[in-house]
Amino acid sequence: MARLSWAAGVDLGGTKIRVIQVNTSGSIGEAITYLTDVGGGPEAIIREISAAIGELQNRIGSGPEAVGVGVAGQIEAESGIVTFAPNLKWENVPFCRDLKSILGVPVVVTNDVRAATWGEWLHGAGKNANHLLCIFVGTGIGGGIICDGKMLTGYNNTAGEIGHMTVDLDGPLCTCGNFGCAEAFAGGWALAKRACMLVGKNQERGTILLSKALGDPEKITGRHVTEAAAEGDPIAIQILNEGIAALAAATANLINAFSPEKVIFGGGVIEGSPGLLDPLCQLIRLRALDAACKGVKIERAKLHNDAGAIGAGALAIKTFLK
Amino acid sequence: MARLSWAAGVDLGGTKIRVIQVNTSGSIGEAITYLTDVGGGPEAIIREISAAIGELQNRIGSGPEAVGVGVAGQIEAESGIVTFAPNLKWENVPFCRDLKSILGVPVVVTNDVRAATWGEWLHGAGKNANHLLCIFVGTGIGGGIICDGKMLTGYNNTAGEIGHMTVDLDGPLCTCGNFGCAEAFAGGWALAKRACMLVGKNQERGTILLSKALGDPEKITGRHVTEAAAEGDPIAIQILNEGIAALAAATANLINAFSPEKVIFGGGVIEGSPGLLDPLCQLIRLRALDAACKGVKIERAKLHNDAGAIGAGALAIKTFLK
Repeated sequence: MARLSWAAGVDLGGTKIRVIQVNTSGSIGEAITYLTDVGGGPEAIIREISAAIGELQNRIGSGPEAVGVGVAGQIEAESGIVTFAPNLKWENVPFCRDLKSILGVPVVVTNDVRAATWGEWLHGAGKNANHLLCIFVGTGIGGGIICDGKMLTGYNNTAGEIGHMTVDLDGPLCTCGNFGCAEAFAGGWALAKRACMLVGKNQERGTILLSKALGDPEKITGRHVTEAAAEGDPIAIQILNEGIAALAAATANLINAFSPEKVIFGGGVIEGSPGLLDPLCQLIRLRALDAACKGVKIERAKLHNDAGAIGAGALAIKTFLK
Repeated sequence: MARLSWAAGVDLGGTKIRVIQVNTSGSIGEAITYLTDVGGGPEAIIREISAAIGELQNRIGSGPEAVGVGVAGQIEAESGIVTFAPNLKWENVPFCRDLKSILGVPVVVTNDVRAATWGEWLHGAGKNANHLLCIFVGTGIGGGIICDGKMLTGYNNTAGEIGHMTVDLDGPLCTCGNFGCAEAFAGGWALAKRACMLVGKNQERGTILLSKALGDPEKITGRHVTEAAAEGDPIAIQILNEGIAALAAATANLINAFSPEKVIFGGGVIEGSPGLLDPLCQLIRLRALDAACKGVKIERAKLHNDAGAIGAGALAIKTFLK
């Protein structure tokens, strides 16, 4: 029997580390999840990743030939240095070099959203697309762009930063310091913040929302908003509709700018709100130029929470094993 | 002496046809301008282009080995069919095929803004840039995007349609039917339209504008607005500032999404308003993410009205002679 050839794909987030076996044959195998030991610093996290891969290796019977990691943060392209990762409390950590020296196999490090884009492109809803746009709407909004069969990275390795696209010149303040970003309308944190403000002023119109937050507007989450909207809460519906409008404008802007053949939506807000995609698609097609929108497919992501780990593994295979 | 090898670059607009000699050595040679015979239809225009090239050929002593044309309209990528060109009153004209059969040399047809981007990239302010964004602000706003040393074309060959980027969800109506496009604030037509509306209501604040339009607000042009703003007209200054804010947001959105190393601004509104670039740059850097903006150069276009013809010629050389 030929020896199994596989890469370990790692999704390194602020709360969880997910590791998945991605075979060079294209199939997906074993998976494992650890809690992230943020307090222990980079050394502890590298030990955790190493242990998780070791556990997979025991199950599989052979070790990975390469490792890919998606990190929630900014990555320097060539070196794999994590320049800034607020959830991990990292700044300028030579993560790729250090992980490689422990594991003894080639390691590639990328941004978590770009890793998820690799996943959806090579193993999910974007398979075989040459011009693809992936938009992930969770607490924040991020994306990845594939043009002409290539992942865009750009001069500063930041291509795909679509959440902070201004869609309303005098719109609400965003966490980035700018005003009117798509994320400041449609990101999970923004849904929660806007709901808190509106419910504070109109408690009788936000009763469903308020009951989900156990009576405290400050405790409202993005998930409460999508749930309450589905149950008919007027304030939740209004906030979600404003989010959809902003997201539609941002998506139409990207369709105009780079003419994808397919747009994929994933992330917690999208998955938590099954009725969101239809009105979103309608608004996108109203906003975008007809010539750019012609024949463009708009679909849900397929890999859910595994997109990042699968994508990181697929990237490791593409980088080192092909 | 070695025979001179050159391509003819043609900029086909609704009023003028500009033809320029682009040598395979990289130098630029002779140039000629004809008025466009729109009334005569595609046949008349093909005859004009043929005559203009013939005249260049007489001056140069040899004919072009290839021809590139930039057309103000939508082009089908493979066939070079002009699917829609309102200024020429063309729909589905097999222009590339017909021009080639008359000229007897290879012909490539592209959109006029993309041709100008080729020009600035290969011969102008964008030389040697691997990640480049070109933005042309004239009557309308168009652009071209180079990522990783490749011109983006996209699935529908419409990549670079940046003028109709929504920057204000409830902003002014645009010619495209959408609301709040960057072009509806900063395009020449929008400057004129907004000035006309405001001057109609506040004639005493728009005296300079009004005098330029000989007392008739309906006769105000985009150029009047940039000129009057430079001369201190309060309404012109307000409208131009709103245009700059919208253009800055659109540019920041593209810097976030594509991460260029250089951004080039050209077109009539930019050239007509020398004081515009500094505040524009400041606002772009305020809006864009620091990580995406780091080290990005923002400059004026260099080739002025010749960018389209030079770019079309350079594209012909790149396509057929290299």
